[in-house]
Amino acid sequence: MKLAKPLQNIQPSYIREILSAACSPDVISLAGGLPDDTTFPLELMSKSLKDLPNRAQLFQYGNTAGYAPLLEHFRERYQLPSSHDGIVCTGSQQGLDLIARAFINPGDHIAMEAPSYLGAIQVFSLAQAKIKSISQRVDGPNLEELEACFTTKNITLFYAVPDFHNPTGVCWSLAVRQKVAQLCQKYNVTFIEDAPYRELRFNGEHLPLVSSFCPDNSMVLRSYSKIATPGIRLGLVTGRLNWISALNKVKQAADLHSNTPMQAVLLDLLQHDEFIQHLAKLRHLYHARYKALIQNISLKLPAYCHLNTVDGGMFIWLSLPKCDVDALAKSALEHGVAVVPSSVFYQDRASVASALRLNFTNASIEELGDAIERLAKVIKNYCPS
Amino acid sequence: MKLAKPLQNIQPSYIREILSAACSPDVISLAGGLPDDTTFPLELMSKSLKDLPNRAQLFQYGNTAGYAPLLEHFRERYQLPSSHDGIVCTGSQQGLDLIARAFINPGDHIAMEAPSYLGAIQVFSLAQAKIKSISQRVDGPNLEELEACFTTKNITLFYAVPDFHNPTGVCWSLAVRQKVAQLCQKYNVTFIEDAPYRELRFNGEHLPLVSSFCPDNSMVLRSYSKIATPGIRLGLVTGRLNWISALNKVKQAADLHSNTPMQAVLLDLLQHDEFIQHLAKLRHLYHARYKALIQNISLKLPAYCHLNTVDGGMFIWLSLPKCDVDALAKSALEHGVAVVPSSVFYQDRASVASALRLNFTNASIEELGDAIERLAKVIKNYCPS
Repeated sequence: MKLAKPLQNIQPSYIREILSAACSPDVISLAGGLPDDTTFPLELMSKSLKDLPNRAQLFQYGNTAGYAPLLEHFRERYQLPSSHDGIVCTGSQQGLDLIARAFINPGDHIAMEAPSYLGAIQVFSLAQAKIKSISQRVDGPNLEELEACFTTKNITLFYAVPDFHNPTGVCWSLAVRQKVAQLCQKYNVTFIEDAPYRELRFNGEHLPLVSSFCPDNSMVLRSYSKIATPGIRLGLVTGRLNWISALNKVKQAADLHSNTPMQAVLLDLLQHDEFIQHLAKLRHLYHARYKALIQNISLKLPAYCHLNTVDGGMFIWLSLPKCDVDALAKSALEHGVAVVPSSVFYQDRASVASALRLNFTNASIEELGDAIERLAKVIKNYCPS
Repeated sequence: MKLAKPLQNIQPSYIREILSAACSPDVISLAGGLPDDTTFPLELMSKSLKDLPNRAQLFQYGNTAGYAPLLEHFRERYQLPSSHDGIVCTGSQQGLDLIARAFINPGDHIAMEAPSYLGAIQVFSLAQAKIKSISQRVDGPNLEELEACFTTKNITLFYAVPDFHNPTGVCWSLAVRQKVAQLCQKYNVTFIEDAPYRELRFNGEHLPLVSSFCPDNSMVLRSYSKIATPGIRLGLVTGRLNWISALNKVKQAADLHSNTPMQAVLLDLLQHDEFIQHLAKLRHLYHARYKALIQNISLKLPAYCHLNTVDGGMFIWLSLPKCDVDALAKSALEHGVAVVPSSVFYQDRASVASALRLNFTNASIEELGDAIERLAKVIKNYCPS
């Protein structure tokens, strides 16, 4: 069989490939978007995991929308009005894929920030959407560009990660959030708010969801990979009833439903008395690592390496003078440190800014120091001052 | 947002809808395709479920193709040659969806038996395939029709359930299996062999997979919903390396990977000393229920109700004189018995034969007796002799 057309131009995920290479014990990986597995709240999940053999009903076929008590919990937790609902997905990645399949026809225009989350670029490319790139500032998307894009093109949806953006770590300001919501309402563009890092704020004040300013023009994707564990593959999409009902139809064909025993375990975890402390510990640990990383960078990397500070999330974006970032990342791997070159986060290769995405959640403070030392040697070869 | 075109003609699954209605305690359901949850091998899974909190690595992001030790087990269990591989899916339903997304362009022709599995009709409709229906005989598809279809149309794939077909329970004869494989090779059609009920044979001799006669022209879908439990959502696709690699690309966008803790639990279960006894008990139970069902039918239903006997699986197909099967099924539900009318298993409503699909795996012998009594009253109203 020949590959279907949408697949012919899709490359396998560079990140998923590099993650395999980065498994070697000699390599320190700042490449993945992996939470630290020593922080997984397995102790808090232990009782419900051990109780699973006594709950046969969880192992039967379940509802496509999700395990009913978990959905009920989400409705309360996220204060959904009666006009809205949620659907549990096999990771928020599936949520995004369902949205694209339910609402995008080949050739439809959608908007995304550039750079942007690779998994979203893959999903919208598979859906054969025409992706319009909006450049990013330190407080969110360039609003003039965004409005111009909404005005000149018939944009179906605008996908973004307003809290601790992947890959740049940028967190949208309150003013930008309100303005984007306003523009989406004015031009009838649906805002797809991807919020996997939202709970990982270690600095500054919690800001409202963009969607809270345009609830009927938006859908929210939530992930339990960062605050619970990724291996259980559970995410959530919330939005208007008729939109969630469309996602349900696609999900029936896509996988019938997501695994129910883990939905029950997730519910118990989210309701556990000590879950709040778990989150606090997680933020504390990641904050310490983040501080170590930026300190190492300022000590060991040339002054022309620039980073914008972040208030949470899992990544920083290290801007470099114009250079071949792919060759640099490859050489870094040979020198024992895995990083992701900026090129993989742009759908339009022409607009690539030279930069590296560095993850700070899955390496110890000592490893972060060693990693930057190794990186320093390589950067000097590729970006001679 | 407007629904994408492929979704505009998709109805939500009648079966998934009826399953909700059938949950009422007053209703005996022969409608679903549910295994009996009292038979779930939770005792055999108990040790590994309880051990999960000690295996943090299973809760980290995993490989898209699946948990490596489980994949290794599958390669041995199914004796895959080095030219072939497998990919673990979120239920075999996802496997089917990935195949359609990887290999079907809108307008491509595919072949299926009529009637056929509703989930497959949904998947191929979403992919906007043109479905050519092949009628079914007691020993498999009508071979003349199949060859005529392969000759006149450019058929990409032929999807079928050769072992205890859903909905009819038909099991293809050895001669038909060989001939279909030969035709697929001759006309370069990929055979998609869906085998969820294969291990549920309670009578007669085990027959080779159709794919064993055309390994390079086929992919096999396996489900662990019937022999382990459905709630864990795990299935497998096997086939040629380049085809599996294409499925991997789609799966990266679709959900990154399937849940890993349950993959580890499934591996332990498949390797458990007592797993073979579990399967034997399951077959014994379903056989007893099947016998009770057909005995009740012959005693309580009018002689014009015809069923072909089955040697395994979960369903029988009760043929009726021409009547309004949708109205009949609706009335049956009001009389306390849920069944599925034949109409939902045809993509071409014009060719619908009047029949009901009856499941015998999820009701006790006593319930099966009561269900047929309730059905008898309704059938007499809709098919007066």
